Amino acid sequence: MPSEERLQDRLAWLRRLRTVRRFRPDPLPEPALRDILEVARWTGSAKNLQPWEFVVVRDRTMLERLSQLDGFVWHLAGAAAGIVLVMAGDPQRRAQETFDEGRLSERIQLAAWAYGIGSSIGWLVGDGQTEAKRLLGIPPERLVRTTLSLGYPAAGEQPTSVIRGRKPLHELTHYERYGQR
Amino acid sequence: MPSEERLQDRLAWLRRLRTVRRFRPDPLPEPALRDILEVARWTGSAKNLQPWEFVVVRDRTMLERLSQLDGFVWHLAGAAAGIVLVMAGDPQRRAQETFDEGRLSERIQLAAWAYGIGSSIGWLVGDGQTEAKRLLGIPPERLVRTTLSLGYPAAGEQPTSVIRGRKPLHELTHYERYGQR
Repeated sequence: MPSEERLQDRLAWLRRLRTVRRFRPDPLPEPALRDILEVARWTGSAKNLQPWEFVVVRDRTMLERLSQLDGFVWHLAGAAAGIVLVMAGDPQRRAQETFDEGRLSERIQLAAWAYGIGSSIGWLVGDGQTEAKRLLGIPPERLVRTTLSLGYPAAGEQPTSVIRGRKPLHELTHYERYGQR
Repeated sequence: MPSEERLQDRLAWLRRLRTVRRFRPDPLPEPALRDILEVARWTGSAKNLQPWEFVVVRDRTMLERLSQLDGFVWHLAGAAAGIVLVMAGDPQRRAQETFDEGRLSERIQLAAWAYGIGSSIGWLVGDGQTEAKRLLGIPPERLVRTTLSLGYPAAGEQPTSVIRGRKPLHELTHYERYGQR
């Protein structure tokens, strides 16, 4: 068992992870970026396949180009750094890879948040996926869909979910059998 | 910025999350279960749709029945509690739901781990999904695929990834462009 203080810190920090889409221009400290990637590397995956690679982008011109691709990735333009997830792209394991991509993204956000660094998940769709692979030199058979925008939150940035909130727990939870509250 | 001590605790705890599949029979304390669900509730999702509900199963007979269904869920039999994720099942949003299901699962594992509670993700496949819905009274249109087995690690339990490890970071990481190390 962790100490009560550590337990409460961990839980509060987990609960408070929020999407941040507007960033200060300050670069990320190297140790923070390294720790984020290290946490990412240890993410669990189906059959321990670890079907992922990371392209770290800090070049402003490239971030701006990527931010204009098809999808919901505009926030890359103002990010201190972007991480483009390169998934193996095995057509027989699409669902597993997508699930593992979600696990990985959550971890990256949390590791950043441990440092007070905000983040946002972006999705490339359609031609945006093809173009991102071309721009970054990624082999065409890979699945490139998820981007993470990282940076210190801009002053006055209101994280989305503070505004929109979440469903109450009693609506979501059933005990022993669906419908039993 | 968090204090250095908290930062290191958070990062170490994130890095050390491992799958645990054999459990002590001790029940989970109510506050721990409540906090796990509370963290789960705050998981981010595409368009903040929160396309999930949770069925918490502690009945031993039901856990054993579920553990025998098609898929990789045998570890439910010995879990102190199982959480069955009930996803909305929108066929137009299958990829998003699968990705969000991964984010949610990762959070549940981390929240449990904050308490020293081990966990394992299970997947139901084929008839196993249909049967789980029937056993738990879940409407057939929902997507029921992921289960989480939770419990205190059994004495001597060797978490899988300690044995199998992970790929080194330099193999996974590219800078600015794919192939640039």
